[in-house]
Amino acid sequence: MLTAADRSPRPSERARLDDVDAWIDGWAAPAAAEDVALANAVGRVLAGSALAPLDLPPFDRAAADGFALRADETVGASAYNPLSFRLGPASAGVAPGGAVAVASGEPLPAGADAVIRLEHAMPEPPGAVAVIAPVFVGSAVERQGCHAARGSALLLASAPRLDAVDIGWLASAGLLHVSVVGRPRVRCVLVAGRTIEAGRAPAAGETFDANGPLLAALVERDGGETVDRRRTERSKEALRAALAAPGGAQGVDIVLIAGGTGSGSDDHAAAALAEAGALAMHGVALRPGGTAGAGRAAGVPVFLLPGSPAHCLWAYELLAGRAIRLMAGLSPELPYAVKTLRVARKIVSEVGTLEVCPVRRTGGGEVEPLPSFDEVGLAAAAEADGFVLVPEASEGYPQGASVTVYLRR
Amino acid sequence: MLTAADRSPRPSERARLDDVDAWIDGWAAPAAAEDVALANAVGRVLAGSALAPLDLPPFDRAAADGFALRADETVGASAYNPLSFRLGPASAGVAPGGAVAVASGEPLPAGADAVIRLEHAMPEPPGAVAVIAPVFVGSAVERQGCHAARGSALLLASAPRLDAVDIGWLASAGLLHVSVVGRPRVRCVLVAGRTIEAGRAPAAGETFDANGPLLAALVERDGGETVDRRRTERSKEALRAALAAPGGAQGVDIVLIAGGTGSGSDDHAAAALAEAGALAMHGVALRPGGTAGAGRAAGVPVFLLPGSPAHCLWAYELLAGRAIRLMAGLSPELPYAVKTLRVARKIVSEVGTLEVCPVRRTGGGEVEPLPSFDEVGLAAAAEADGFVLVPEASEGYPQGASVTVYLRR
Repeated sequence: MLTAADRSPRPSERARLDDVDAWIDGWAAPAAAEDVALANAVGRVLAGSALAPLDLPPFDRAAADGFALRADETVGASAYNPLSFRLGPASAGVAPGGAVAVASGEPLPAGADAVIRLEHAMPEPPGAVAVIAPVFVGSAVERQGCHAARGSALLLASAPRLDAVDIGWLASAGLLHVSVVGRPRVRCVLVAGRTIEAGRAPAAGETFDANGPLLAALVERDGGETVDRRRTERSKEALRAALAAPGGAQGVDIVLIAGGTGSGSDDHAAAALAEAGALAMHGVALRPGGTAGAGRAAGVPVFLLPGSPAHCLWAYELLAGRAIRLMAGLSPELPYAVKTLRVARKIVSEVGTLEVCPVRRTGGGEVEPLPSFDEVGLAAAAEADGFVLVPEASEGYPQGASVTVYLRR
Repeated sequence: MLTAADRSPRPSERARLDDVDAWIDGWAAPAAAEDVALANAVGRVLAGSALAPLDLPPFDRAAADGFALRADETVGASAYNPLSFRLGPASAGVAPGGAVAVASGEPLPAGADAVIRLEHAMPEPPGAVAVIAPVFVGSAVERQGCHAARGSALLLASAPRLDAVDIGWLASAGLLHVSVVGRPRVRCVLVAGRTIEAGRAPAAGETFDANGPLLAALVERDGGETVDRRRTERSKEALRAALAAPGGAQGVDIVLIAGGTGSGSDDHAAAALAEAGALAMHGVALRPGGTAGAGRAAGVPVFLLPGSPAHCLWAYELLAGRAIRLMAGLSPELPYAVKTLRVARKIVSEVGTLEVCPVRRTGGGEVEPLPSFDEVGLAAAAEADGFVLVPEASEGYPQGASVTVYLRR
């Protein structure tokens, strides 16, 4: 039976988000490095600087289509004083008075020290070309190693997630593999009860599980990998079993439990974690998500997320997600674009709680609050363009105030 | 042999970007819809509105932990006037003067029309609860279908790429699959010559291919799929063969050719496309990327991208990428975050050409230009925090000017 006495944790015992962050930042470190094929490295984070295996470019080469020649022989050339050069094959090199046709990227023939671009040359058949402008030594030439010397850093270890340009750049240096931060392996434990997986019609009182797909997508976004997803009964024994020996060879780096964090007589997540390992906190000054908790079991960090999807979402974003992002080598901050916008209507919040308020863009650089998570659950998040996080010390924002909005896209 | 007479296209024949956009927008339409498992739908675009297969929630349910009862029986309750209710099992429903303990999400027992939250109830054992505040009808109750009625849109077809929240939201409605815009299938033809794939040391004059990995990552980013990547010799015949019959059952939706677009005697991409189908344009008022072209062969659009990686990148971003994004159901715009920042040093550009200038953030809300693509090739992109696109009509920007920066991350 459920009574008020079962309520836990009390507001005075709720962890402040600053303390939660400090706790996470105290142990969450990048996972061990792994080598991946360059083609699979988009979105990954370098485990160390990527070094050039050879000079880039590996030889002196033409940087434009034109004619390779000796720069000092072009002095005085102009449209009124075209200077003629004998054309020869690249294999013979450039002899005094000679030139070799080159395309951009081709090796600079021996004896040449500059390339005159096509637009400064005129055809003068047969077997010759007229030059109508002087060039300096090194004009339109890329020297061996000028973009990256062998052994120098192509990209620093501090680079953000690799994007297409990075992949192209590393490929141009001949890299086939790259050492990246490993993906933290996540076990996701879904506390069953009244939720079922999609695929059959719900019986009376049942609803579909949103947390499994939600958490898998969030973990993937944050650079982690859900290697084990299981549903458990709503009992302390089942939760303890799910927490047993999470490490080891087939192990995981972090465990998420969704459900059973509340104050009901069938909520056992915190007690199970306390028995299986250690409960570091239960109850956070956060809304939605205030019944979240965290601790360790069998050497692995465990996060307790509320079963209600909107609460699960924000407990993930601000607690578990921070840890997974750090373990994936990413910034711990919320992975949303941030923009300062004005609120078209007042936002009210409870002092002492970090409150997440879903908002919609109205055009004109403003946002307006949507019905709260308490009222409409995950629908509030699905409808939102972004979220305003009202700090613990704030009662909210008056109409017209400038606020930081975390935009979904 | 290479002579100035080979130069094509002449500047006066170069297509303006506005005209390129109009040409692409004239035919590029979303690919045929396909059903995908919800778990694989992150990042995809809905092909139509996603409809609720049943009411959400499917039954009246408690929105908080507490006690289900009849609201009119709580009138007058306060801390000084606690009202006592007999507790009974949910299966029996709520009789007059009775209450049933409920957890958030549980069905509202028959006979109840409100839930009083735990904090407004006091334990009064045995078998009773004292209520210390009145509630209205519907308090802490979610009515059947209040979040989404059966058949209503959970997400509109106009929604952007699905994110984790969308996936959770659709899962909560019991969707297992979702109909999304298909991924445009891309053939990527890499014109060999002086480039090789990584895996062996380059011989004299050879460099590693960057365009294959670069384009694969860009296509993936833009919602497409490189289903066919091939290297061809640097001959017109080889290019014609690569363009032959690109459609059909094992076919592709779009062809990219990287290389052979320039003015050299061994540049045959435009001629091959003209013979295999139709060349719509060759030469674009763009830098880097000005030798790009486009047309159709065997019923499929074909883009000709320069072989030099920085040029290939920007010809992709502004031409082929626009088409692929539209075919994937995405916005055609460049998929970069856009921010207005001041330039710390002057940016110079040629009038009549859209010029892409790599920039680095300096802190203090400013950006400074980096060495150009002409000078350092793809290294300029890899080092850049973002890019400034100087319009055709502009000569550039003076120091201190506010400019639109396309940020890589």
